[in-house]
Amino acid sequence: MTEAYDDNNIFARILRGEIPSARVYEDDHVLVFMDVMPQGEGHTLVLPKAPSRNLLDAAPETLGPLIAAVQKIAIAAKKAFAADGVTVIQFNEPVAGQSVFHLHFHVIPRFEGVALKPHSGKMEEPDVLARNAEKIKAAL
Amino acid sequence: MTEAYDDNNIFARILRGEIPSARVYEDDHVLVFMDVMPQGEGHTLVLPKAPSRNLLDAAPETLGPLIAAVQKIAIAAKKAFAADGVTVIQFNEPVAGQSVFHLHFHVIPRFEGVALKPHSGKMEEPDVLARNAEKIKAAL
Repeated sequence: MTEAYDDNNIFARILRGEIPSARVYEDDHVLVFMDVMPQGEGHTLVLPKAPSRNLLDAAPETLGPLIAAVQKIAIAAKKAFAADGVTVIQFNEPVAGQSVFHLHFHVIPRFEGVALKPHSGKMEEPDVLARNAEKIKAAL
Repeated sequence: MTEAYDDNNIFARILRGEIPSARVYEDDHVLVFMDVMPQGEGHTLVLPKAPSRNLLDAAPETLGPLIAAVQKIAIAAKKAFAADGVTVIQFNEPVAGQSVFHLHFHVIPRFEGVALKPHSGKMEEPDVLARNAEKIKAAL
């Protein structure tokens, strides 16, 4: 049994523009911004605008545009940072590592010899996030 | 620059039926079977039938049916194993952990207090994989 969607989760507030984010891409269906606690350089989050707690309760019609955006961002982020690969992760429920309960995909550029940092790492400086967002935008 | 698709990768051979697998689900677009080196109980792989090395070179039209199957399997696997959550992972290129070069999503049921095993773990017994495939099928 999945819990109900909380309309005041932090990503809902970012979607409503109540909290700032380093935005990379937006269309009618999705919003993409930089993770404030990146596990690696260029770590973005890809969200549907439609509310769902995670993948388990998402309306099926929201998923096509979402995965299309994940692909678009993975390609652009790999190019923007000259990465060697990309890790895509999506967590469902706390046991899996989900900490914000609005469906999102992590898109993380990967580099030879660089391990992922823990997700509970330190907050990145806003100017670094803004600069990285611009790099990915330029590669879209 | 992404390398070319190798038509003899092990998942291409599984798709052609040249190598057995513990199959969970199949339709015109996707095939789902149990990972032979599970990182957790009920670990499945969800593949498009269309060839691509990974998400970076996939034809966009293959992604909608693929993510729909990922959702379907995540819901069924959580139910089948009474899991507390589900981790969804998709690796692009070796640096990210990709070891078979046909696009695939990992769908891994998660349980309180149980960490993921390394993916290079030991091969699971075929009868265990077959039994787990049946459990998920029954929950679809």
